[in-house]
Amino acid sequence: MTASDDARIMRAAIALSLRGSGQTSPNPNVGCIIEKNGLILGRGWTQPGGRPHAEAQALAQAAGMTQGATAYVTLEPCFHLSPRGPRCVELLHQAGVGRVVIAALDPDPRTNGQSAAWLRDQGIRVDTGILADEAETAMAGFFARQISGRPSVTLKLGLSLDGCIAMADGTSQWITGDAARAHAHVMRASHDAILVGRGTWWADSPRLDVRLPGLEQRSPKRLMLGHGDTPEGWILIHDPASIVQLDGVSSILVEGGAQTAAAFLHADMVDRILLYRAPVIIGGGRQAVADIGLPSLDAAHGLWRMMDTRRLGGDMLEVYLRQRAR
Amino acid sequence: MTASDDARIMRAAIALSLRGSGQTSPNPNVGCIIEKNGLILGRGWTQPGGRPHAEAQALAQAAGMTQGATAYVTLEPCFHLSPRGPRCVELLHQAGVGRVVIAALDPDPRTNGQSAAWLRDQGIRVDTGILADEAETAMAGFFARQISGRPSVTLKLGLSLDGCIAMADGTSQWITGDAARAHAHVMRASHDAILVGRGTWWADSPRLDVRLPGLEQRSPKRLMLGHGDTPEGWILIHDPASIVQLDGVSSILVEGGAQTAAAFLHADMVDRILLYRAPVIIGGGRQAVADIGLPSLDAAHGLWRMMDTRRLGGDMLEVYLRQRAR
Repeated sequence: MTASDDARIMRAAIALSLRGSGQTSPNPNVGCIIEKNGLILGRGWTQPGGRPHAEAQALAQAAGMTQGATAYVTLEPCFHLSPRGPRCVELLHQAGVGRVVIAALDPDPRTNGQSAAWLRDQGIRVDTGILADEAETAMAGFFARQISGRPSVTLKLGLSLDGCIAMADGTSQWITGDAARAHAHVMRASHDAILVGRGTWWADSPRLDVRLPGLEQRSPKRLMLGHGDTPEGWILIHDPASIVQLDGVSSILVEGGAQTAAAFLHADMVDRILLYRAPVIIGGGRQAVADIGLPSLDAAHGLWRMMDTRRLGGDMLEVYLRQRAR
Repeated sequence: MTASDDARIMRAAIALSLRGSGQTSPNPNVGCIIEKNGLILGRGWTQPGGRPHAEAQALAQAAGMTQGATAYVTLEPCFHLSPRGPRCVELLHQAGVGRVVIAALDPDPRTNGQSAAWLRDQGIRVDTGILADEAETAMAGFFARQISGRPSVTLKLGLSLDGCIAMADGTSQWITGDAARAHAHVMRASHDAILVGRGTWWADSPRLDVRLPGLEQRSPKRLMLGHGDTPEGWILIHDPASIVQLDGVSSILVEGGAQTAAAFLHADMVDRILLYRAPVIIGGGRQAVADIGLPSLDAAHGLWRMMDTRRLGGDMLEVYLRQRAR
């Protein structure tokens, strides 16, 4: 296989990994592909609840044909023992694969690098770092938990061209169109939890469920930022830093409003922004983001990088990633 | 020539026409290319002040080789007599061209369709409507004057991702980067006049000149929207509708601020929006557009179509056109 073949197959494995997004916490949503002589023999991704692992799924599909095959995994296979299932590193060895291609090493200290080393000791060729950034982005919640100890935070904003999320009287239905709203529902389904501020909850009583055929069961946990009573079915947090303590939550989608967006931006806890933009001018409407305590314009530069843009019906989606030193 | 050859050459003629943008009012900024057997023999564009015309320039370049050639013109050649120069329709006939390809017919009733008909009467093949929309956009000021009786209006906004044109304290230097600012200066040079509100003038004392090497002499007229004293070198207008009366002004670039942008949008006199967007979040800053009297969100939809987007350094430029029935 050439380097570009490796990248092509790994990209497909990353796409598979996204199927488990928001469903596997605290486990990572891994993707795996078993390839031999140019044929794809098995495809797997971490199943809801975290088991079976992607490797187990893909190897089972390829059963009987795995001798000398190559396994592409978006995350280093697990090295540590678990009462819930076999160690993937052993499964791969038992299956007789000749090569393992790994996107990102597992930051979990119980595995971190040990699986790659052990596989090499067994005479299996191991390549690492193939599309590592893309894989980490696809498993953002797991990496955020492992590295910074908190869930990853995605801020969703639906804006007019002049940056308004509603008219001055609060009317916000609808700025963006059907395609953008459907995409936003897919984003809900791929996060462990959704968060709104108390003001947004009072104004809109948002259901924050997933209104897409076949995905109704994937509605995430519902969080509210604020103080006072907690509506049934909601979890109340008093400030952004509290998300560290949320059990079983590795990824959060912050949906509104301007004060809540500002609170997370001020705390520098936003890792990704989804900007849904409609080709309309509102004029004098409600702003998307309240005061974030920016000391100067200089301080605003260099923080965000656009990683994706796409058309959604008449609207545009832009995805920005927070640039952080590692 | 195939239809795609015609389109390719006409696109080049439109690009030439833009060299005269902001320099030819009240004349149109036309582009012309003389082609024969696949060779480009002459290129011309309307010169500053409106003469010579593009056709005269291009034919002069191709002198002696124009028999049987094809002339590509972005606007129907002039039919009416002028004390300032020859009729282009006669120049083309005298040059012996065998074919004339026209993008847009001249809306001026003294020509409108008559040149095309007269050329056909002389046995010259005439094709019209090749990239007509693109040509009209390139001569937007002329077409606006002819069709609606007022100059074309372009609104320029330099925004953060959350739609702010400044921090809450008014700081706006700099949101966008060098490349975006240089592009904005080119846009200044291509309009007959620049307009700001009195508030912006007081706050920034903008020079509104063209700070680009070689283009310093192309600084447009300076207009201020408001009431009271008029600073030296400025023309005061009291409301957007007054632009109809401005002599020698076919195109206006509205540069700020939020009240001025809103006044022109409220009057539905904005034909084009240049959105320069920097990948920064300001939060609670100054909004780009003040109240425009929007009755409902429904009323905001369907007015604007994105016609261009490009990267300018770390920023993005988006160009939106107002969709109007003709």
